[in-house]
Amino acid sequence: MTLLETLGRQAKQATSAIANLSLDTRNAILETMAQALENQQDSIITANKKDLAQYQATLSGPMQKRLTLTAQDIHNIAVSLRAVIDLPDPLAGPYPTWHNHADLKIIKKTVPLGVVAMIYEARPNVTVDAAALAIKSGNAIILRGGKEALNTNIVLTHILRQALQQHNLNPNIIQLITDTSHETVAELLHLRQAIDVLIPRGSAKFIDFVVKNATVPVIETGAGNTHIFVDDTMDENKAIQIIINAKTQKPSVCNAAEKLLIHENIAETFLPKIANALIDAGVTLRGDEASQAIVSNIQPATDQDWSTEYNDLIMAVHIVKNIDDAIDWINQYTTHHSETIISTHPQHVTQFMNAIDAAVVYQNASSRFTDGFEFGFGAEIGISTQKLHARGPMGLPALTTIKYEIYGDGQIRE
Amino acid sequence: MTLLETLGRQAKQATSAIANLSLDTRNAILETMAQALENQQDSIITANKKDLAQYQATLSGPMQKRLTLTAQDIHNIAVSLRAVIDLPDPLAGPYPTWHNHADLKIIKKTVPLGVVAMIYEARPNVTVDAAALAIKSGNAIILRGGKEALNTNIVLTHILRQALQQHNLNPNIIQLITDTSHETVAELLHLRQAIDVLIPRGSAKFIDFVVKNATVPVIETGAGNTHIFVDDTMDENKAIQIIINAKTQKPSVCNAAEKLLIHENIAETFLPKIANALIDAGVTLRGDEASQAIVSNIQPATDQDWSTEYNDLIMAVHIVKNIDDAIDWINQYTTHHSETIISTHPQHVTQFMNAIDAAVVYQNASSRFTDGFEFGFGAEIGISTQKLHARGPMGLPALTTIKYEIYGDGQIRE
Repeated sequence: MTLLETLGRQAKQATSAIANLSLDTRNAILETMAQALENQQDSIITANKKDLAQYQATLSGPMQKRLTLTAQDIHNIAVSLRAVIDLPDPLAGPYPTWHNHADLKIIKKTVPLGVVAMIYEARPNVTVDAAALAIKSGNAIILRGGKEALNTNIVLTHILRQALQQHNLNPNIIQLITDTSHETVAELLHLRQAIDVLIPRGSAKFIDFVVKNATVPVIETGAGNTHIFVDDTMDENKAIQIIINAKTQKPSVCNAAEKLLIHENIAETFLPKIANALIDAGVTLRGDEASQAIVSNIQPATDQDWSTEYNDLIMAVHIVKNIDDAIDWINQYTTHHSETIISTHPQHVTQFMNAIDAAVVYQNASSRFTDGFEFGFGAEIGISTQKLHARGPMGLPALTTIKYEIYGDGQIRE
Repeated sequence: MTLLETLGRQAKQATSAIANLSLDTRNAILETMAQALENQQDSIITANKKDLAQYQATLSGPMQKRLTLTAQDIHNIAVSLRAVIDLPDPLAGPYPTWHNHADLKIIKKTVPLGVVAMIYEARPNVTVDAAALAIKSGNAIILRGGKEALNTNIVLTHILRQALQQHNLNPNIIQLITDTSHETVAELLHLRQAIDVLIPRGSAKFIDFVVKNATVPVIETGAGNTHIFVDDTMDENKAIQIIINAKTQKPSVCNAAEKLLIHENIAETFLPKIANALIDAGVTLRGDEASQAIVSNIQPATDQDWSTEYNDLIMAVHIVKNIDDAIDWINQYTTHHSETIISTHPQHVTQFMNAIDAAVVYQNASSRFTDGFEFGFGAEIGISTQKLHARGPMGLPALTTIKYEIYGDGQIRE
């Protein structure tokens, strides 16, 4: 048995310890964890400094920032852990219950998935967040964070596992993969006997690799080649505010806008205004020939641009003939995350809402709202861009499944 | 572009024609189809005779029977098509709707998956059933039936496509793959740009192949290595009736029982009775050493037996120490389909219900009830043995997903 197979078996064995705990007990564990993290902040910071020292030279500024844990960051982690305590129980009934024609009592119960595995970047706060959501939803979890955060993650999971032991629970409810080699990730993708769902986070390329190679069940998250279509009937000022917000408020994230489609009827008047506003906000514009003919400082876009998620202050502009053209274009290049129409034309809006194949479709609002907290879910495990099981921002229910319990008194099938 | 890529593109293009039709129109299409099948029964039977003539020599009796379509069979197909008309609309609201903190109106709408693909055996009734369920749920469908039914399926899908055209709809809502080579199946498993879900039917080996090789989303169906655990506190007569029914009423199907676990406290008294009853019903018994010591005409079971779905009049017997032992054994060998405890001991029943990792868990009833119609769903697309998206018998809702529609008035994220 390989190390990972052992870990998988331990996780599976631990599921029975966490799956049927009362809500009070699950919440009490989370409170113990929050206290322990705050009490042991010095050892967390020491480990984190070790990680930072080792990778300072190779990490970009934003990546260093995401890796760093200060006392304030640890306090914030404890705060978000306590916020999970306040969330409703994702396993709670009442469950749909009925008697069938043979008088069998059938209960469709909500139950935990079992073992959740998560692969993620060097963001130690995700270690605690993911573990907390797993505990709340009655799941065991296997964590594999970015190698740059290894020392921090070892200390964090040690503290979380101690909290489980304080409640006389199997610490293997939370396990960290400390071998951060690519081989171990590859093995994890095929650990079918142990893993009920794998949630990968990271670059579009990495998620695509996971989806194409995994034989364990996967929830695809994140990639967002997000479009805004500006119709010929709309409020110009609102359009400009929305586009600027969706593109520039946080360009590195999946719900930021990447492409701007403009109805040809308004391109001559609207494109110069929005182009200036975007350029003033530091955005580099690329575009098709029609858009370049209108605004001179738009650089030519290549075919590759239309399917690229920049995650940066870059936006590509394409002029479309009409709403049908816009819908066809978006459905060709969408990553099925978030798509927007800016329009006050009711029929166009309905057509867009119906035809666009994405998790979230907006009229007259910034796509930056695609987020579990903004939706009011109180938590977010990720944003699913697939259609099965969960779509869009995923709250705690995404970590549950159902089980039919059937109670009989000797019924047989005729 | 390969033939299959063209077919996939055509299916994707056809989704917009079917996705937003009213319930009345979808039902009218189904009625047109039912009438057309009955009106054109001669051409169906002619094609079916051609298939039968070609494969008579190579097909077993039961397989020939499943392939054969008589006038009565075609009438029955029309009847089940009309039964789909009577089912509630899987796309109907009311949809959960709320306003978030920024006063965005968020609607969580139920929508079709898009393109459903189905690979199935030489059972022409499945061609019509699957197409009908796709139409009712607003999906386009790509069908790939067993090669032995090719001529029948060509005529059936021709009739169904004509019915779509009579309603001025794109006939590519229903498409048949007529190239029945293994290469085409392999290509289908990777047609990610076109297929929203693939539902494979067939042998456990084939489904396992699909799950391990597909990069399109798959719903795993069917395999059932189904156990019955007989506790030491139970009603003996009911136990015998349930075991005989679960094993022998239709041994070829996935919800038939395959394994019998018996509490050691009652093995000496109960095993001889149930063994005689099973042998009288034509069942061949295999078993562990302890069971062979009690009943002489139990043949030795090999390690392979414990994970084998026989789909035949064979059953393997294993004596367990207690309920914990039974649960561990089942969770080791289960295919997560249907598992049964025969017991009148409340704590044991609760423990079994909670701990067993299967779609359906029974107390004191035959596992043959695991079926969409028996559950009261009015339809069955298959029985999911996975945990994501759908678990257990799948009705029409399994062919839907959700989409968030968000209506704003210029909202941006702070």
